[in-house]
Amino acid sequence: MEGLFITLEGPDGSGKSTIANLLGEYFKKLGTNYTITREPGGTQIGEKIRDIIVDNKNSAMGAETEALLFAASRAQHVHEKILPSLEEGKVVVCDRFLFSSLAYQGIGRGLGVERVKMINEFGLRGIKPDLIIFFDCNPTLTIIRKTKSGGDRLELLGNEFHQRVYEGYKEIIKMYPENVEIIDAKKPIKEVYEDVVKLIDTLLKERKGLE
Amino acid sequence: MEGLFITLEGPDGSGKSTIANLLGEYFKKLGTNYTITREPGGTQIGEKIRDIIVDNKNSAMGAETEALLFAASRAQHVHEKILPSLEEGKVVVCDRFLFSSLAYQGIGRGLGVERVKMINEFGLRGIKPDLIIFFDCNPTLTIIRKTKSGGDRLELLGNEFHQRVYEGYKEIIKMYPENVEIIDAKKPIKEVYEDVVKLIDTLLKERKGLE
Repeated sequence: MEGLFITLEGPDGSGKSTIANLLGEYFKKLGTNYTITREPGGTQIGEKIRDIIVDNKNSAMGAETEALLFAASRAQHVHEKILPSLEEGKVVVCDRFLFSSLAYQGIGRGLGVERVKMINEFGLRGIKPDLIIFFDCNPTLTIIRKTKSGGDRLELLGNEFHQRVYEGYKEIIKMYPENVEIIDAKKPIKEVYEDVVKLIDTLLKERKGLE
Repeated sequence: MEGLFITLEGPDGSGKSTIANLLGEYFKKLGTNYTITREPGGTQIGEKIRDIIVDNKNSAMGAETEALLFAASRAQHVHEKILPSLEEGKVVVCDRFLFSSLAYQGIGRGLGVERVKMINEFGLRGIKPDLIIFFDCNPTLTIIRKTKSGGDRLELLGNEFHQRVYEGYKEIIKMYPENVEIIDAKKPIKEVYEDVVKLIDTLLKERKGLE
């Protein structure tokens, strides 16, 4: 049996990480083998790459460098964790994946969606998410909250950048709608969780029906 | 006036770094503005990326990750150092550049020359070397010397890998012969240096003639 690959996408602070953790508990209860992971990072080498990306000291970083580092971290994640987990038949939930790079670097940084997709596909070994859940939520409020308490190199980019990323996400979903589901992430977290679980249950049932 | 971009390519231990340092002294005597630099690295961010690439602890690194990290380090190098130096009219000598990735990752790691070229060109901003000097020298002896005294993650890959890289270089030169000059790097270093200086002098004269 092959695993299921689910990615969570959306602006900073839209609740993806909280939901990812709740999904871990959900799969545990179901007795389903799962892996919850995140990007950038997810592996030891990926975390080292992540440290370079988010470090506020690295203000001289070019946009292309940033995009290539994200692609490198993702390639390692696929190689070391995502692909092996899927081959073991696990459900893999990944907090951020390809769409984040298309939105943040492709549109936010203005590098171009197609070009950023190309450098990422170099390391994906052909894998594609079975379900991409977009957490729809205007980033304004969440970003103000994060930057007040510090924030890393990307979080500190300001409201205009994050607004562009948010609009970018919606553009990308129009370009690549396959397997994308949009949920209203402005709702209370309990309701968001229920919506996400519904989507995943449907997918699990479909998969069972095919067996 | 535009600068001149010269890259030194070839197997590990073929004398590129020694020659790069000697060229610095040469340009100083000539009163020519110059920058001597190296890859991977050449910038603060690039050195941090280099540390991840060469660290023997990172044995789980996938080939695609390695290739993307080299491309990221190079993109930063172009952005922060090479392009600004060329815009100031300097002669830039770079110890290793694109051809190293094509040979080591494209052929040595078997990722494919065209694919590795593509992820690198993403970060090159259109720059091309005015002169690529290939230090032709079978790697066998130099590698044995380096691995005996330790060596980093790439140096320790063994003779078969480095032989494949050497043959790969020659293939790549056939694919992209533009601005490539081959020198016999088995000769004593003094003679190699004289050959390199001859090539650079010709280029500097041509450039003067065009002004």
